[in-house]
Amino acid sequence: MSGTARRPAVKAAVWYGPRDVRVLDTYVPPPGPGEVTIEVAYCGICGSDLHEYADGPHAIPVGEPHPESGVAAPLVLGHEFCGTVAETGSGVTRVAPGDRVAVEPHYRCGDCPRCRAGEYNICRHFGFAGLMGHGGLAERVTVPAYMLHRLPESVPLEQAAVFEPAAVALHAVRRAAVAPGETVAVVGLGPIGLLVTRLAARAGAGRIVAADPSPARRALARALGATDTVPAGDSCAAQVREATGGEGADVTFEAVGSEVALGTSLAATRRGGRVMFLGLAGTVSLDAFALVNNEQSILTSVGYRDAYPELIRMVAEEGVDLTGIVTSTIPLADVVRDGFEALLSGGEGQVKVLVRPV
Amino acid sequence: MSGTARRPAVKAAVWYGPRDVRVLDTYVPPPGPGEVTIEVAYCGICGSDLHEYADGPHAIPVGEPHPESGVAAPLVLGHEFCGTVAETGSGVTRVAPGDRVAVEPHYRCGDCPRCRAGEYNICRHFGFAGLMGHGGLAERVTVPAYMLHRLPESVPLEQAAVFEPAAVALHAVRRAAVAPGETVAVVGLGPIGLLVTRLAARAGAGRIVAADPSPARRALARALGATDTVPAGDSCAAQVREATGGEGADVTFEAVGSEVALGTSLAATRRGGRVMFLGLAGTVSLDAFALVNNEQSILTSVGYRDAYPELIRMVAEEGVDLTGIVTSTIPLADVVRDGFEALLSGGEGQVKVLVRPV
Repeated sequence: MSGTARRPAVKAAVWYGPRDVRVLDTYVPPPGPGEVTIEVAYCGICGSDLHEYADGPHAIPVGEPHPESGVAAPLVLGHEFCGTVAETGSGVTRVAPGDRVAVEPHYRCGDCPRCRAGEYNICRHFGFAGLMGHGGLAERVTVPAYMLHRLPESVPLEQAAVFEPAAVALHAVRRAAVAPGETVAVVGLGPIGLLVTRLAARAGAGRIVAADPSPARRALARALGATDTVPAGDSCAAQVREATGGEGADVTFEAVGSEVALGTSLAATRRGGRVMFLGLAGTVSLDAFALVNNEQSILTSVGYRDAYPELIRMVAEEGVDLTGIVTSTIPLADVVRDGFEALLSGGEGQVKVLVRPV
Repeated sequence: MSGTARRPAVKAAVWYGPRDVRVLDTYVPPPGPGEVTIEVAYCGICGSDLHEYADGPHAIPVGEPHPESGVAAPLVLGHEFCGTVAETGSGVTRVAPGDRVAVEPHYRCGDCPRCRAGEYNICRHFGFAGLMGHGGLAERVTVPAYMLHRLPESVPLEQAAVFEPAAVALHAVRRAAVAPGETVAVVGLGPIGLLVTRLAARAGAGRIVAADPSPARRALARALGATDTVPAGDSCAAQVREATGGEGADVTFEAVGSEVALGTSLAATRRGGRVMFLGLAGTVSLDAFALVNNEQSILTSVGYRDAYPELIRMVAEEGVDLTGIVTSTIPLADVVRDGFEALLSGGEGQVKVLVRPV
């Protein structure tokens, strides 16, 4: 929140503590070397934002600043954002003022073994702008230039607004190596489960069985490419197996993050199949005998790497529409009531809420 | 145990119940269509045999016969065997009397989706001769011809005697896709862990860190290709990480089958790495947050498929010696005292006990 009084104040949603997010005037410093200030067009609200709002801090640094961002709370939330370049710091050649950009909000050190292997999503000092550094629930935000991807004319900001969760889904579909004709199950139809459904369909999955307790979300899944939908609950795995000829899915995406959903996902998967575990659960109990005896794999996926160029390409060249998950767009002033509180109250109608700060 | 009194009696180790294995005269029926009677040269004792002896039945059918073997207890134990063809039933062209053969003791239906995909180790009706049908702890045994692999002159029966556990290890190394130069950790140096060490070295692993509480087994691991060995226990994971430059192994083989060893294996593995879970544990508790956040995979491997031809080739053409795990060879009459009881008493000196029935 440092800066100079000569620059105009910028409205931002700032996390001070659990249930204490304040929309107030902040001062964004001019971009330093290698930095860029973005005017934010859209910023989505993510499940991890909700966790921070409800009972954080989880990822937000308090006291000790994050090693890559140098920031600790109070912190501007929001990591699913895109916008227009307002100002560039010295040495920035990647983008110029006026460029429309998607922001890939990964901090990374660039020098640890994982970064050197290109796996910067599991960098030793990994962090997110909007969780470990200031984010996009603001009129303007300053970020490192390496986070930016310039959008071609054919990619509207409305699509880029969901690139961040779409990148999570794309990374998971890539890591699961969904092959043409394979049977896919998706357990949990939040934004990630729904985008996995869309991208698994694009990857050529034969059948896609999508499971969620909400009829509205099941309908969304069908619109995005699910061939079958089933309710969640005790009989979910049996129903997935039934929809897949009795065998179970070749690959099941667990997009909930719970012990129950992991168990359901394993039971819904065929012998020799794979479960892509995407949710962030705590300690879970697992039938390891059945896991080994069925020769199943538990794969995982966290964040994404090198996903934005492909998202840009698929929207620009294939005309893929990722915005089916967006259920409302609200002004920044209403982010607590119509964003955090609305999503936490479990209103089934809301899936992805976008904030339009300017 | 059916047969005719005209055929000579055959000594066999028969499981009647826990702690009740009897070496007695049995009558082996003549081979039916597609069957072959083998004179057994060697039969190894496996950990699963010990489980059946100590507190079975686990896999042994009692009452209801196994669908592929047609057999229920009392049952001749032993699935790690090789020998010489004594007699062939009608329609058998794969082998002829006098042929030396390794026995791949997998029953399979040949018609379920997994069998049709070549993944017969996870056949719906999967079973083992020696656990779900009569096995090789006997002077002679009759098995389906499809279980047999003829040995070339250059492959001695002493090598074929350990093909079964070597096949388990080869399947695991294949499924883990150990790449040249990768760092491998092996947690647990029983026969499987030791053979994984040998085959990971052959696959070109850069460093192989082998962990076990027994100094004798660690010495064996070094002889088989481990570059580093560490004791098991609380500091095991930290020591593996230290031996791998602080990062942890690219792939860790859990060859124990316990919650503790699985936790150690995950902690010994780098971010983005894989744990090959080979052991048969029960219900385990797992830190699913760390698993996903570190983007680690839990792979599994059960039995093997299409492994025997490669084992034959590597012994015949590369001169690979797999017998380093054999610590004693005993007569059938002593199998309870010098086999089951000696192994169960945890005498560290014993790793693989071979029985020589004839």
